[in-house]
Amino acid sequence: MTFADRLRRAQIKPQSLLCIGLDPDVRKLPRDIRTARDPIFEFNRHIIQATEDLVCAYKFNLAFYDSLGRQGLRSLERTLAIIPPGIITIGDAKRGDIGNTAEMYARQMFEQLGFSATTVSPYMGTDSVEPFLRDTRRGAFILALTSNPGARDFQYLRVNGRPLYECVVERARSWNVRGNCGLVVGATRPMHLRRIRRLVPHMPLLIPGIGAQGGDVQLAVRYGCDATGLMAVINASRSIIYASRGRNFVEAVRAAAGALRDEVNRYRAALF
Amino acid sequence: MTFADRLRRAQIKPQSLLCIGLDPDVRKLPRDIRTARDPIFEFNRHIIQATEDLVCAYKFNLAFYDSLGRQGLRSLERTLAIIPPGIITIGDAKRGDIGNTAEMYARQMFEQLGFSATTVSPYMGTDSVEPFLRDTRRGAFILALTSNPGARDFQYLRVNGRPLYECVVERARSWNVRGNCGLVVGATRPMHLRRIRRLVPHMPLLIPGIGAQGGDVQLAVRYGCDATGLMAVINASRSIIYASRGRNFVEAVRAAAGALRDEVNRYRAALF
Repeated sequence: MTFADRLRRAQIKPQSLLCIGLDPDVRKLPRDIRTARDPIFEFNRHIIQATEDLVCAYKFNLAFYDSLGRQGLRSLERTLAIIPPGIITIGDAKRGDIGNTAEMYARQMFEQLGFSATTVSPYMGTDSVEPFLRDTRRGAFILALTSNPGARDFQYLRVNGRPLYECVVERARSWNVRGNCGLVVGATRPMHLRRIRRLVPHMPLLIPGIGAQGGDVQLAVRYGCDATGLMAVINASRSIIYASRGRNFVEAVRAAAGALRDEVNRYRAALF
Repeated sequence: MTFADRLRRAQIKPQSLLCIGLDPDVRKLPRDIRTARDPIFEFNRHIIQATEDLVCAYKFNLAFYDSLGRQGLRSLERTLAIIPPGIITIGDAKRGDIGNTAEMYARQMFEQLGFSATTVSPYMGTDSVEPFLRDTRRGAFILALTSNPGARDFQYLRVNGRPLYECVVERARSWNVRGNCGLVVGATRPMHLRRIRRLVPHMPLLIPGIGAQGGDVQLAVRYGCDATGLMAVINASRSIIYASRGRNFVEAVRAAAGALRDEVNRYRAALF
């Protein structure tokens, strides 16, 4: 089964395109959890138990774990171990390095940590990406057009009359020989998302930037989905995981996740 | 003291532009070391003790440590703790992410691990780089033109008649307001290295690709140095750290490092 098929199944079963970004910042955890022995794991565990029937994927930005040293890595491993099978796990690491080093990173992400997919930076080209695409079951989402302000610095530069990100999209399409290559496209750039979806009608798109970053949910769904209303992975992190810091933390997280999933599904219904 | 000044001092004192890449692959360690309790640390320790008077810097590719999980991180921390003060430590992580995440990575690299400098991917633009440049003492080497074959895929694309990497160089120059921004330029691309050095006469250049990757030492020195014969950081990894797997490992490593330092210095002498 290709990664694209795994993603499709993960979306069809719960009827959800929602991906929750588990990016825990120790300073923002609910008070009750901050005193636990492994607060990051406890925080994640509560969120997963409250939302596992509402999502197609969980995304982990490695920075939030790496910055906590060995304990952070331990919390990440413990969290990954409790995610139900069938849910896609994305290691958001944005790595990119020469071939032999990219192999080490691929081994870390897929074999050691066991992620279903990872994000990859395209700047160093084919040999920096290829090791992440060797296993058809594991996916790589290539950074095409990111959600942050700095995306304007290079990604829109004109190359032969079209933006650089389109060169990345085209190249990624050529990398997708095993049905496991996707793209990262920020929800903050809906008209470009539309353009990209037209260029790659079938590839998985990981769409961050909903919630705290201000991306438009309706346009992310309308322009990000494939013809069957799937293959867009709509990621939200801060707006869900910090829905409340109080006693009602678990209920607030579930309510925020459920509301976003339902909103996405209303817009999906309008596609048909 | 700015990072550029720290680097200058680190090069003047030992009269060396040599940086050794401590990228240990467990499968390639000398037999005697493989049986140690912490073989990675023991391998690094032997190399450092054999070469600390011959180098301006040590570079650590994070992939080689990350791929070993928590134990790898522990070996990295132990290694960093024994590097003599005055020698620059470069965390070669090539990170690049949105602002709040880049802050986490900067904290990891500079505060938690304590590196003097790190490598950063430019694709996501200013807000992904800025957190690495806040502390004038700590440096960030921006990927401009890399040493691997895939560099051709995007870095040479023409933007308004010049290659994309030049847009990166120009932007990095504007980021260098605190004297702590540098560039990564592969030794495998000497004519472009020359072009880049002309564009940024004073910035530190980290030059990988010597040794196993086949870069030309003479041209790396001739085109990479600033007007004072400094500010080029000539990195070699595999050709030094795997100089021998036998009993003569330590002597072979010292001989390889000394030979490369001396070769670099002969070419430097020819600059004046």
